[in-house]
Amino acid sequence: MSEEYPYPPSIAALIEEFAGLPGIGRRSAERIAYHVLAAPRDEAMRLAFAIRDAKKNIRACTRCFHVTETALCAFCADPTRDAGTVCVVELPRDLIAFEKAGGYRGVYHVLQGRLAPADGIGPEQLRVHELRMRINSASDSGAPIREIILAMNPTADGDATAAYLATELAGTGPVVTRLARGLASGTEIESTSPSSLRMALEGRKGMI
Amino acid sequence: MSEEYPYPPSIAALIEEFAGLPGIGRRSAERIAYHVLAAPRDEAMRLAFAIRDAKKNIRACTRCFHVTETALCAFCADPTRDAGTVCVVELPRDLIAFEKAGGYRGVYHVLQGRLAPADGIGPEQLRVHELRMRINSASDSGAPIREIILAMNPTADGDATAAYLATELAGTGPVVTRLARGLASGTEIESTSPSSLRMALEGRKGMI
Repeated sequence: MSEEYPYPPSIAALIEEFAGLPGIGRRSAERIAYHVLAAPRDEAMRLAFAIRDAKKNIRACTRCFHVTETALCAFCADPTRDAGTVCVVELPRDLIAFEKAGGYRGVYHVLQGRLAPADGIGPEQLRVHELRMRINSASDSGAPIREIILAMNPTADGDATAAYLATELAGTGPVVTRLARGLASGTEIESTSPSSLRMALEGRKGMI
Repeated sequence: MSEEYPYPPSIAALIEEFAGLPGIGRRSAERIAYHVLAAPRDEAMRLAFAIRDAKKNIRACTRCFHVTETALCAFCADPTRDAGTVCVVELPRDLIAFEKAGGYRGVYHVLQGRLAPADGIGPEQLRVHELRMRINSASDSGAPIREIILAMNPTADGDATAAYLATELAGTGPVVTRLARGLASGTEIESTSPSSLRMALEGRKGMI
């Protein structure tokens, strides 16, 4: 009895790639690979082209580092958003969670991660320097940033990142707040219900 | 509050394509899309290339219609397999389940589906004609097929398909058997444990 079936190379490669995606186990990957093989060529290639196009077209917003297809993302480019309030998040998916929750009318800054010394991720790997520059240049332009909301995940790494940023940003001008601790410790912003997220945002408190 | 977040077009397209795969919901699709966007370009493109290559290289075996990269699949081309015993399955994944279970040394015939009149799938949409031709030409070549094992899924459509085939193949030469009804009705061969599959295979019974 062999548990390993000798797939032809190109099917084996396809299964391997699908199994490498988050949340997809080996059996799901096999099922998806056969679905792709059985699908009309045009339909299967739409997925291949979508990957290629996304990798080609998507870049980081030059101001907030959210994912975008244009120089400025939709939030930075929107004149109805309050550019004086900046919500600092770890990743694009956190920003999206806030937008889905609704009610926030400021703009964002995407750190592109959190401090994780064990994984070699220090402030230089994040968009911390760019945040400081952004605060300075807004101040110079006469439209200063009034508030920085630190919206890291309520995890050990997230808390450490927020504490680091609070220290770093002290004295740069804006009030620095953090989300109300209505978030349950150890959970992820992305999985928090819209109502909890709105409460956490409304209950934010001064940090420095 | 908007549940629909306005993704840039190429991210929306990517999420759409992933959400179209079996077993992947909308939230998983979003997560996978962001994983692909965050991955190094080479890594993301490996998936796109794997899809393209699989669609380009994979064809149906000219004898049994299993997926293969060569004219004959690995089983039809293997001289140590008993070409006189043919296990008829609905889909490649069923064949793979038997190979993973181990113990079967005959060859296969992949119908590429099951009868489903409600979906417009009749015998002409399956490889039934090709199975009859295969039985005839084996007989003409002096190495006749001695046994046809009908290994449809133990579902209403699968049973109907097996009954249809048993009638169609009556008098063509080979003994026609079906899998022992050790399979639980309403389940799928693909999800059956290797030991149940081996028992079903060992306990197969004459059908016509």
